[in-house]
Amino acid sequence: MNVQDYMVQLGQQARASAKVMATATTETKNNALLAIASALDSQREAIIKANQQDMAAGRDNGLDAALLDRLELNSNRIDGMIEGLQQVAALPDPCGEISDMCYRPSGIQVGKMRVPLGVIGIIYESRPNVTIDAASLCLKSGNATVLRGGKEALHSNQAIAECIAHGLQAVGLPATAVQVINTTDRAAVGHLITMAEYIDVIVPRGGKGLIERIANDARVPVIKHLDGICHVYIDDRADPEKAFNIAFNAKTHRYGVCNAMETLLVHAAVAEQTLPRLARAYTETGVELRGCDRTQAVIECQAASEEDWSTEYLAPVLSIKVVDDMQAAMDHIDRYSSGHTEAIVTEDYTRARQFLAAVDSSSVIINASTRFADGFEYGLGAEIGISTDKIHARGPVGLAGLTSQKWIVFGDGHVRK
Amino acid sequence: MNVQDYMVQLGQQARASAKVMATATTETKNNALLAIASALDSQREAIIKANQQDMAAGRDNGLDAALLDRLELNSNRIDGMIEGLQQVAALPDPCGEISDMCYRPSGIQVGKMRVPLGVIGIIYESRPNVTIDAASLCLKSGNATVLRGGKEALHSNQAIAECIAHGLQAVGLPATAVQVINTTDRAAVGHLITMAEYIDVIVPRGGKGLIERIANDARVPVIKHLDGICHVYIDDRADPEKAFNIAFNAKTHRYGVCNAMETLLVHAAVAEQTLPRLARAYTETGVELRGCDRTQAVIECQAASEEDWSTEYLAPVLSIKVVDDMQAAMDHIDRYSSGHTEAIVTEDYTRARQFLAAVDSSSVIINASTRFADGFEYGLGAEIGISTDKIHARGPVGLAGLTSQKWIVFGDGHVRK
Repeated sequence: MNVQDYMVQLGQQARASAKVMATATTETKNNALLAIASALDSQREAIIKANQQDMAAGRDNGLDAALLDRLELNSNRIDGMIEGLQQVAALPDPCGEISDMCYRPSGIQVGKMRVPLGVIGIIYESRPNVTIDAASLCLKSGNATVLRGGKEALHSNQAIAECIAHGLQAVGLPATAVQVINTTDRAAVGHLITMAEYIDVIVPRGGKGLIERIANDARVPVIKHLDGICHVYIDDRADPEKAFNIAFNAKTHRYGVCNAMETLLVHAAVAEQTLPRLARAYTETGVELRGCDRTQAVIECQAASEEDWSTEYLAPVLSIKVVDDMQAAMDHIDRYSSGHTEAIVTEDYTRARQFLAAVDSSSVIINASTRFADGFEYGLGAEIGISTDKIHARGPVGLAGLTSQKWIVFGDGHVRK
Repeated sequence: MNVQDYMVQLGQQARASAKVMATATTETKNNALLAIASALDSQREAIIKANQQDMAAGRDNGLDAALLDRLELNSNRIDGMIEGLQQVAALPDPCGEISDMCYRPSGIQVGKMRVPLGVIGIIYESRPNVTIDAASLCLKSGNATVLRGGKEALHSNQAIAECIAHGLQAVGLPATAVQVINTTDRAAVGHLITMAEYIDVIVPRGGKGLIERIANDARVPVIKHLDGICHVYIDDRADPEKAFNIAFNAKTHRYGVCNAMETLLVHAAVAEQTLPRLARAYTETGVELRGCDRTQAVIECQAASEEDWSTEYLAPVLSIKVVDDMQAAMDHIDRYSSGHTEAIVTEDYTRARQFLAAVDSSSVIINASTRFADGFEYGLGAEIGISTDKIHARGPVGLAGLTSQKWIVFGDGHVRK
């Protein structure tokens, strides 16, 4: 079968399965998640063996250590996948949730019911545990899924796919409710992102390059997660202790994450009070500092170039800029931010309200670390990604982000007058 | 200036205006709406004169009577536009609405704030009053707008655009917050729907052909309103009086609207009891009936062809099918519905719940007319269209559909542990 026919077949099967999934009971979906967990547990050896094939091929193809680490599956990581499935099974079912019911003057009662989106396509890179992550969230939210993992993880993903199919069948759901594309042909992605009749939304998980490419070529809506160039602004009315703690935590808690601070903005009036202590702490922790002229007048550091302001380091590097006031900080954010997460540290009520209202990012934070911008921290229970889009889902996307709402009307024979 | 440069300039101006609009106060936005209303009132003559130019050109170009009627502006219709502006001014401001605030175990308080989408592109056909409709909803929801009306209405739209600019400036808002494209060059639309850096979402208003073309070529998200092939299913457990009233109202209350019933599905067990009375009423009202074989065995009517089941008549024509049971009705809907609105008439609790859960349309109605699927009837106060998409906005789209939600976090120096 050629790749187009193969993808159309996958799409048709997904569309048919989506209808079954949309009305599957909460119990059935939870049982499926637990049955998949059991299958992973009993197929540990087969999965690890398949993964070793991928690892060997990866080494032969010269994958670097970081990529090999992301590719590797061991018993611990399989435990992690099993735990993830159990956690998703424990979450409330978003489907069927009815809200905003009210009576209208006409006498009808109207409200909304949460329903699955339909078929979700997930495109991701090397980590095979994303297969379970993504499949479990889509399954719980009543959607069918077509998964396309990285070519390096093909054997691992196929082994995991067998466990998923086994779990679905064990509870009487169609095995095609979760399908993992079994070809590394790049044309498969081209079909996946353009088959609007079979796929309702694409969620790409990976680097900015991958996501931009997909968004550019897609004819299906894409929930994008581009980069996280996050800012912390320390106002001259900031509590110094809070400012220190937040600025330090936002940069150093973890480096390779999208909600880490990449640029620190400091009000000129408190630069001398704030920066030396922070610079010592950063330097001791191994963070390289790159500052504007005014920063360099206060602390010793590299000069920041224009490029620094729009760079997502994902590394122990921080750019620092001294600004005249909050408006200058907001102007900088407006120009360079990727719209992911920005924080202000201030005790000033009016400025806090202004910053909250005016900053156009998916998370706006007052007096807390940017690292809180996360589905688990926000109480979503799980996260398929963080959307930097404004349409449909913005910020951390949990189960609700994989659903839609339809209007429901209850009447008693009502007609329009 | 060539059309591309012109569109880029419009886009840049819209993007800059959007920032101002996003933080404009409710009072300022309402004052702008009322100032636009005043300008329309005082510019009545100029608007009607401009419209007469369009009408004369339309007649010369052989526009049919229906199109000419939609194109015409008179003092009554200008009153309607003024009233519309006053109604939108009276609606609650969706922007800044904070919801779902809760404390997390970490100590942060997290919730959502409603914010504008940014820049909205509206593409529509001949009716010039859409210019005011669309502009007022986008303005109230804090967005900048780029409007592209039908070429037949160019002079009318330019006259209205002057009133809008005047109203915006009168309250200190940028005149470029609402821009009406002043060229009939079709290339302008091509730029509008692909300038993702300047336009956040496109709302096309018009026929299915226009919308499909736009959705196909757009690189900007599109809120689509395709056709309304709406069904009413009369169950064998229906109350006969309710069934009669609903089926009659859903077809005959208005013909040219998307939420009118196009196909009636009747349970075989009640076909003989239900159809003759309905057929008499429809026929007396001038509705042409086209039925399946089993329908023709009960009432006299034309034979329905396969094509009838997927036709949006927008006219006094109704297709009728007798089905074996609710499942057969839902299968028919699943196959032929456009996903707009479906209704069931039944007194059976379990079937009502099943129909509600399983039918995948933007409105699902129990024991009421499909004609209720409407932003005003649902209490949205106004409506920019009815979305048959599942992403972002589904069903009637009011002010909230033109906004997004960002996450907001309040802390007191909180950091991630």
